[in-house]
Amino acid sequence: MRETFNFCAGPATMPYNVLKRAQEELLDWHKEGASVMEVSHRGKAFVALAKECESDLRELLDIPANYKVLFLQGGGLAQFGLVPLNLLGTQIGDGKTTVDYLETGIWSKKAMLEGARYAGVNTLYSGKADGYVDVPHQNEINVNPDSAYLHLCSNETINGVEFHYDIKNCPIPVVADMSSNILSKRIDVNQYGVIYAGAQKNIGPAGLTLVIVREDLLGKASPYVPDALNYTLQAENDSMLNTPPTFAIYLMSLVLKELKEKGGLEEMEKLNHKKSFMLYDTIDNSRLYRNPVHVDARSNMTIPFTLADPTLDALFLKEAEQHHLINLKGHRSVGGMRASIYNAMPIEGVIALTNFMKDFEARHYG
Amino acid sequence: MRETFNFCAGPATMPYNVLKRAQEELLDWHKEGASVMEVSHRGKAFVALAKECESDLRELLDIPANYKVLFLQGGGLAQFGLVPLNLLGTQIGDGKTTVDYLETGIWSKKAMLEGARYAGVNTLYSGKADGYVDVPHQNEINVNPDSAYLHLCSNETINGVEFHYDIKNCPIPVVADMSSNILSKRIDVNQYGVIYAGAQKNIGPAGLTLVIVREDLLGKASPYVPDALNYTLQAENDSMLNTPPTFAIYLMSLVLKELKEKGGLEEMEKLNHKKSFMLYDTIDNSRLYRNPVHVDARSNMTIPFTLADPTLDALFLKEAEQHHLINLKGHRSVGGMRASIYNAMPIEGVIALTNFMKDFEARHYG
Repeated sequence: MRETFNFCAGPATMPYNVLKRAQEELLDWHKEGASVMEVSHRGKAFVALAKECESDLRELLDIPANYKVLFLQGGGLAQFGLVPLNLLGTQIGDGKTTVDYLETGIWSKKAMLEGARYAGVNTLYSGKADGYVDVPHQNEINVNPDSAYLHLCSNETINGVEFHYDIKNCPIPVVADMSSNILSKRIDVNQYGVIYAGAQKNIGPAGLTLVIVREDLLGKASPYVPDALNYTLQAENDSMLNTPPTFAIYLMSLVLKELKEKGGLEEMEKLNHKKSFMLYDTIDNSRLYRNPVHVDARSNMTIPFTLADPTLDALFLKEAEQHHLINLKGHRSVGGMRASIYNAMPIEGVIALTNFMKDFEARHYG
Repeated sequence: MRETFNFCAGPATMPYNVLKRAQEELLDWHKEGASVMEVSHRGKAFVALAKECESDLRELLDIPANYKVLFLQGGGLAQFGLVPLNLLGTQIGDGKTTVDYLETGIWSKKAMLEGARYAGVNTLYSGKADGYVDVPHQNEINVNPDSAYLHLCSNETINGVEFHYDIKNCPIPVVADMSSNILSKRIDVNQYGVIYAGAQKNIGPAGLTLVIVREDLLGKASPYVPDALNYTLQAENDSMLNTPPTFAIYLMSLVLKELKEKGGLEEMEKLNHKKSFMLYDTIDNSRLYRNPVHVDARSNMTIPFTLADPTLDALFLKEAEQHHLINLKGHRSVGGMRASIYNAMPIEGVIALTNFMKDFEARHYG
């Protein structure tokens, strides 16, 4: 266990055992006489690692055989453009093709704004007027059957709202940005056409992007997508058309081993519920702290809260740091605080945080 | 000094001191209570690191003020498409715009093939018929003044040919893929419009792509380039429009500090000449080894050589490994051996290799 608990929204805290192991073998990995970051991605040892990493991911997320797993680069943000580039092919900019979007926060809005450069945009839901405090229920989502796909962000890190269900039997492919809640719970991959995620919250370090794509959506790329970012070409080349971010994949592989050891996503889901419940309970039972999100859309990963007296913000952050609770400052667009409690945040970190919050309130807002 | 010398073409060997330092502070960087890969890219500590990294790079390469330095992702390969996407704007696919290419090996050829999806291609030089053993002299390069730019690969890792000069006063922007020889010698950045490089040879680990772009070439992006890969947007946002590959940038910053301590690029250039001379001299003075490249186009970084008796190949590789000389197998397209001796390969590694080569020849081909 480390002395400091790091609530950074991303790049986020990593499992202690993963960093420890990486440290131990940083100069000589796998008896190769070299660091894992110094060996060829096409060499036997690294290819075996990448294959095992994919197979562990498939096991954890129960990914069906008709889905490809890709290790790409560019982060979640790059996918805002790369999804249309890979799925819309020659339909890009044809003036007819549309994409449906659910706007549940800052990230899904950004995806929508960028998506509008490639196709017409239908905003099926917007939480903007209410300040992004909810997600739609499935029965409120009426997709346009002619749209190429439906895009959503399954967890909004800034606004703290999360989809707690998979959209079932959608007549068009569902594309989900799961950057901030992938691997935090079980999902039904079958309900999605594309799942993508920047690694730097629940998967590993920044610089790796995971894409899970249903095979029938391959072969639809625009000629303007660079080969290195083309789902189909990368699927055909086991994500090694170009040099993948090998060290990040190595860390991901260690993260997945740890998740498996801890009992997989069923156990992570229980633990994440326990952690978030503890924090929301502290917030809701206080006079000082407040989270505005509708209870059934509250995120289990990224929990923003404000102080009733904002003049206490700076002191809160200062004292938190003195208690080894770091990176709690909220996003500039919503202010206040934000506790990111991804998989790698141990429950001890949440206990320490909630104890501090109660103590701080008693001392300064009693 | 490490026991094993790793001649991998990339991801390549890293400086020992860099790995050692990264290992020491992997769990607690900069007294942050967290690893450098666990802190926000927008936090003070990381922003300071990124700024210093850029400033060290500017100092080492003497980058003029009218050039932007970008930390991107996707590797050199992604730039084969991203360069036209960023420079050709609405001219993409207009049926008129052309780009000039110099085809000096496998990589520049790949860039050209991908480039043909975005614009017309003029092949000003092709070394293909001769097996890619030379580069053109400046007076042989007659650019088309109407072309958008001239593209070249300054060092071909597979074929082992290198430009040992900067093309001077070119009437159109010169775009250079310097993935495998950047920072190995002094260059005149003023002669280039865009310089790009995947990190995994001379800069750091795989997963970071460096782009150096002249300011007047910004603002010319196609609407189809994803924001995260748009030079102009990233230049406006200090490469932090999205989460950059922070751990790779951290390692790059350590690599640059080491280069500065060693006397900068003038000293690296001398050392790299010395290393490559030693290896070519061993090859040329042997009966067993052969490098086919014209002497004045021979690479100082990536040196392929074949054995007069290819039945000795497997034994050569096996014995080399026993001598702690690893990853010498040549690229499958040319066969034989390849010694990649980037900046981080100490001269002791080349001495060990050449001693082994002489000894091997005496024992098995005497």
